[in-house]
Amino acid sequence: MGKNKQDQKQDLKTAKGTRDWSDEDQNVLKGILDTISRVIRENAGKELVTPVFELEEVLKGKYGEDSKLIYDLKDQGGEALSLRYDLTVPFARWLAMNPNISNYKRLAVDKVWRRDQPALAKGRLREFYQCDLDFAGPSDPMIADSEIIAIIVEVFETLGWNGRYTVKLNDRRVLDGMFEVCGVPEDKLRPISSAVDKLDKAPWEEVRREMVETKGLEPEVADKIKGYVMLKGGKDLVEKLQKDEALMANPKAKLGIEEMSLLFRYLAAWKVVDKVNFDLSLARGLDYYTGIIYEVRAEESTSFSAFDTPTSNGATSQPEKPKQESKKKEKKPVAEDEDRSDDPSVTVGSVAAGGRYDNLVSRFRPNANVPCVGVSFGINRIFAITKERIAKGEKFDYITDNAMDVYVMAFGSDMTESRIAKKPKPNVQYKFAETAGAPLGIILGEEEEKNGELRIKRLGIQDEKEKERLGELADKGIVVKMADVGKECRRLLDEVKLEQKTQSLSLK
Amino acid sequence: MGKNKQDQKQDLKTAKGTRDWSDEDQNVLKGILDTISRVIRENAGKELVTPVFELEEVLKGKYGEDSKLIYDLKDQGGEALSLRYDLTVPFARWLAMNPNISNYKRLAVDKVWRRDQPALAKGRLREFYQCDLDFAGPSDPMIADSEIIAIIVEVFETLGWNGRYTVKLNDRRVLDGMFEVCGVPEDKLRPISSAVDKLDKAPWEEVRREMVETKGLEPEVADKIKGYVMLKGGKDLVEKLQKDEALMANPKAKLGIEEMSLLFRYLAAWKVVDKVNFDLSLARGLDYYTGIIYEVRAEESTSFSAFDTPTSNGATSQPEKPKQESKKKEKKPVAEDEDRSDDPSVTVGSVAAGGRYDNLVSRFRPNANVPCVGVSFGINRIFAITKERIAKGEKFDYITDNAMDVYVMAFGSDMTESRIAKKPKPNVQYKFAETAGAPLGIILGEEEEKNGELRIKRLGIQDEKEKERLGELADKGIVVKMADVGKECRRLLDEVKLEQKTQSLSLK
Repeated sequence: MGKNKQDQKQDLKTAKGTRDWSDEDQNVLKGILDTISRVIRENAGKELVTPVFELEEVLKGKYGEDSKLIYDLKDQGGEALSLRYDLTVPFARWLAMNPNISNYKRLAVDKVWRRDQPALAKGRLREFYQCDLDFAGPSDPMIADSEIIAIIVEVFETLGWNGRYTVKLNDRRVLDGMFEVCGVPEDKLRPISSAVDKLDKAPWEEVRREMVETKGLEPEVADKIKGYVMLKGGKDLVEKLQKDEALMANPKAKLGIEEMSLLFRYLAAWKVVDKVNFDLSLARGLDYYTGIIYEVRAEESTSFSAFDTPTSNGATSQPEKPKQESKKKEKKPVAEDEDRSDDPSVTVGSVAAGGRYDNLVSRFRPNANVPCVGVSFGINRIFAITKERIAKGEKFDYITDNAMDVYVMAFGSDMTESRIAKKPKPNVQYKFAETAGAPLGIILGEEEEKNGELRIKRLGIQDEKEKERLGELADKGIVVKMADVGKECRRLLDEVKLEQKTQSLSLK
Repeated sequence: MGKNKQDQKQDLKTAKGTRDWSDEDQNVLKGILDTISRVIRENAGKELVTPVFELEEVLKGKYGEDSKLIYDLKDQGGEALSLRYDLTVPFARWLAMNPNISNYKRLAVDKVWRRDQPALAKGRLREFYQCDLDFAGPSDPMIADSEIIAIIVEVFETLGWNGRYTVKLNDRRVLDGMFEVCGVPEDKLRPISSAVDKLDKAPWEEVRREMVETKGLEPEVADKIKGYVMLKGGKDLVEKLQKDEALMANPKAKLGIEEMSLLFRYLAAWKVVDKVNFDLSLARGLDYYTGIIYEVRAEESTSFSAFDTPTSNGATSQPEKPKQESKKKEKKPVAEDEDRSDDPSVTVGSVAAGGRYDNLVSRFRPNANVPCVGVSFGINRIFAITKERIAKGEKFDYITDNAMDVYVMAFGSDMTESRIAKKPKPNVQYKFAETAGAPLGIILGEEEEKNGELRIKRLGIQDEKEKERLGELADKGIVVKMADVGKECRRLLDEVKLEQKTQSLSLK
C-alpha cells in the first residue's frame, strides 16, 4: 500500500453529474422505485434487465440531435460500445432478437446515462433512474394506450400524489397533420414540432421567434399554428377538432382525432378522464413516436430547495431559495435548454412521459410487426418532488427508515464473545448473546430511546420457575433510564454472581 | 424512419460477455438477489448505491494485474472515467468522502464489469452481479469478521443450500508470515501467494513448477511451502500451528494465528463452526486484504449444462454435456486462467468471497482510520448452480413465477371498451369491464386452466334480488369446459338480451 503519496493528490469525488445514494435519500429512492415497480407488476409487467451498454450501432440514429449526449466506451480491441440513453431502445432491440415474442408487458427499473449539462437543482443528472412500462404487440386501437394511461394514474395515486398532476396528451398524427394543414414544409416538421414543445416553458412570442427567425418558417404559417397550439381541453376539444373541416380533410389528423375520441371513451371507462388534458402544444422530442404521446406534469412548481444532492465534499449544493423567487421567475422566457440549466427556480417539468412507437422494432428486424406503447417514469424528478414534500411535513407510508437497530451488550467476566455491540435482529442477538453465556442484555429499542430509556434483560434463563421469579426482567426486560444503566447493571450482575455461587454450592 | 436499409445490415446482439435477463431467468435472479438483500438488511445492512463509473484515478492501482480488465470510457472533453470493477473500492471512496461516518454496515446489490474472457458456461460474464456486505469502522478483533461469516452462512441457509458449501478461511498475516518463515523474498510474496491460490484447481506439481520455473523461487523454499499449504482443518489446525515454534516466532504469523483462534471461539458462539474450513492454501488475488480472507465453495462440481445463457439469436449457447465428462476433466491441471476459460466442465469456483481490508479507505483519505471487512456474493455463479438444481427438480420457495394472468373478456354488442383481453388484476378487470357495461366476463384462472376449464360470470348486477336469482353465475362465475365456452356464452347472452327486453318493456 505504498502509494499513499500519489493518492493524496487525487480529487475525492464522484464523476460529474453523478451521485451516491445512501441513508435517507436511498430510503426515499427505494420507496419510490419499489412502489412503482409493484404497481406495474400488479398490472402484469414482467421485468427485463438489459446490459448497461449496447453496441454503438444499436443506439445510433435513434435519438435525433440528442445522440451527442450518448456516452461511448473506449474501443479496447473489440466492439464499439455505448452506455444506454434510455430503456426503450434496448427493449426494442430485445424484441427484435426474440421474434417468438409477440406480446409482452415489460417492466424495467434501471439507470440511464446522458452527457447533458447537469443541473442538480432540477434533479437533472448525467446518471439517473428511469422506470419503464411498455406494452408490445398488436392490440385494437387505443386499448393498450388507454391502459398505460390508467396505470400512470394508478402509479401516482399509489405514490400519494392525490391528483396533484396532469397527464398531458397529444398525438403525433394530429400534430403532424395540423402542421401540414398550416403549411409547414415536410423537412421542417420535426424542428417546428420541437419549437412548439417549448410552449410550456416559454411564451408564444419566444417560440414564434424561434420558428420564424431560427428555423425559417413563414410568419403566416406560424400564426396559423398559434391558432391550434394554444388549444387545451378534454373530450370537448376532440369534438371541436372533429368539426374543423380543414383538419379533418388531412388523413393523418383525421385518424389521430378519431382515435383520440376513442381514447377518451376508454379513459372514461378507466375513470381517469379527469386526470388528463388534451394539449395540442405537446410534441415530445424523440423521433420514434408514431401515435399518442403523453407527459405527466406535477401541478406545483418547485425550486428544489429540498433536493440536497451532495456535492463532492458532501455538502448540499443548492441554497434554499424563497418560494417567491421561484414563482417570479417561472414565466421567464427561455428558448434554449442550455440557458435554463443553471437556473434552479425552473419548474421540474415532466415526471413521466411516453407514447406509441410502432416502428422501432422494425428498425432492428425489418418487417417485424411489433407495435409498442410505453411510459417512462422520471424517478429523479419524482424523488426531488417527494423530498420537497417530506421537507414540508408530508408523510409517505411507502418510505421507511432503516430497520431500527437493536443494541445488545452483554456483560460478564471473560466474555469477549458477548461484547459485540449493535446487533440488528433481536433473535440473532439473543442467539449470540445466550450462546456466549452473557447473563445480561441491554436492549435499546425505538420506543425506549425516545424516552431516554432502555431495557435490561436477564438472558439464558431456561428454568421456568426461575423465569417466573425474575418476572419482567427475564421476559421483555426492565425499563431503565439511560443515566442509571451502569448502576443497574452492576446491581444485577452482583445478583447474578450471587445466584451462580449459590447454584455451584448446591451442586456440590 | 427511412433508415431501415442501413439498419438491416447490423448484427443483432448484446455486447460481448453481456446478456439480457427476462422471464424465468429473471425470476430466478430476482429471487436470489431479493433473498440475499433481505438477509443482509435484517442484519442491519443499509443500501449504498454508487455510480456505475468512477473517476479513472479512483480505480487505478487497486486491483493489481487485473487493472487491465477495467472498462474505460471515451474521454469526451471532460473526465477520464472507468466502469467499476467491484463494489468494494467505490465503498472505500464513499467512506473517504464522508469522514463523519465512523461506523457503517453497507449493503450493495449491483452490476460490475470486467473485460475478461467470457466463459458463459462457467457463469463468467463481462457484466455480472455482485451483492456485497461490508462492515466499516473499528471493532474488537474478529468481532465483525465472525459476524460477516455468520451472515454468509445465514445467506446460504436461507437460499436453501442446506450446508452444501464450505467457507474456506485463511489470514493474510498467517500466509505472509508463513511465506517469510519458508524464505520467500518480500518482492515475491504476492506472486507466490497467487500461485498458491491455484491449488484448488491444479495439483501441487503444477503450482510448484509455476513457483520455481516461472517465478524463480528456490526449490527448497517451494518444498517448505508445501508442508504448510496442504494443511486444512478447523480449530485443531489452529492449535497445531500454535505449537509450530518457527511460525510463532514470526510476529505477523503469531498475531494471525492468535486471532484465528479467537475467531474460532466466536464462530462456535455463532454455531457456524461446522461450515468453515481453515485452509492455508487460500490466498485470494486482490491486493487490498490485510487480515482474514475467505471464500465460499459450492460442494458440488457443475458443468453448467443448465445455464442456458442466450446467445445473440436467443438460442442456448452450451450444449448439454454428460456429467461423466465433467468429472473426468475436473482434476485436469491448469496453470493459467486463460487456459481454463473455454472449458465448460471446470468447477464453478467460489460463490462468495471477501476478507478484511483495513487500509483501503486511507488510500483515498490519508490517516483515515476506517478498518473494513466484507463479503461479496457471486450472484451469477449462485444463479448458475440454482438453475442446475432447478433442472434436477429442486424447488426454491423464494423463486416465484410471474403472477398468474387472469383473463377477462366481456361480450356485448358495440362494446369495444370491453374487448381488452389479458387484464392482470381481477379488481381492475371488473372495474373496467363493469364500467364498460359488459354483461359477461370470462375468467381464466390458474386452477380452472389446469382442468381445461374457465369461469363465466355475469357482470354489472347491482340488484341484490337479481344476484340471488342468478346465484353462482353472478358470484364467482360458473365453471365451463373450454370447448363449451362459445355455446355457453351465446346461451347466456340470449338470456341477457331477453332480460333487457323485459326490463325495457316493464319500464314503459
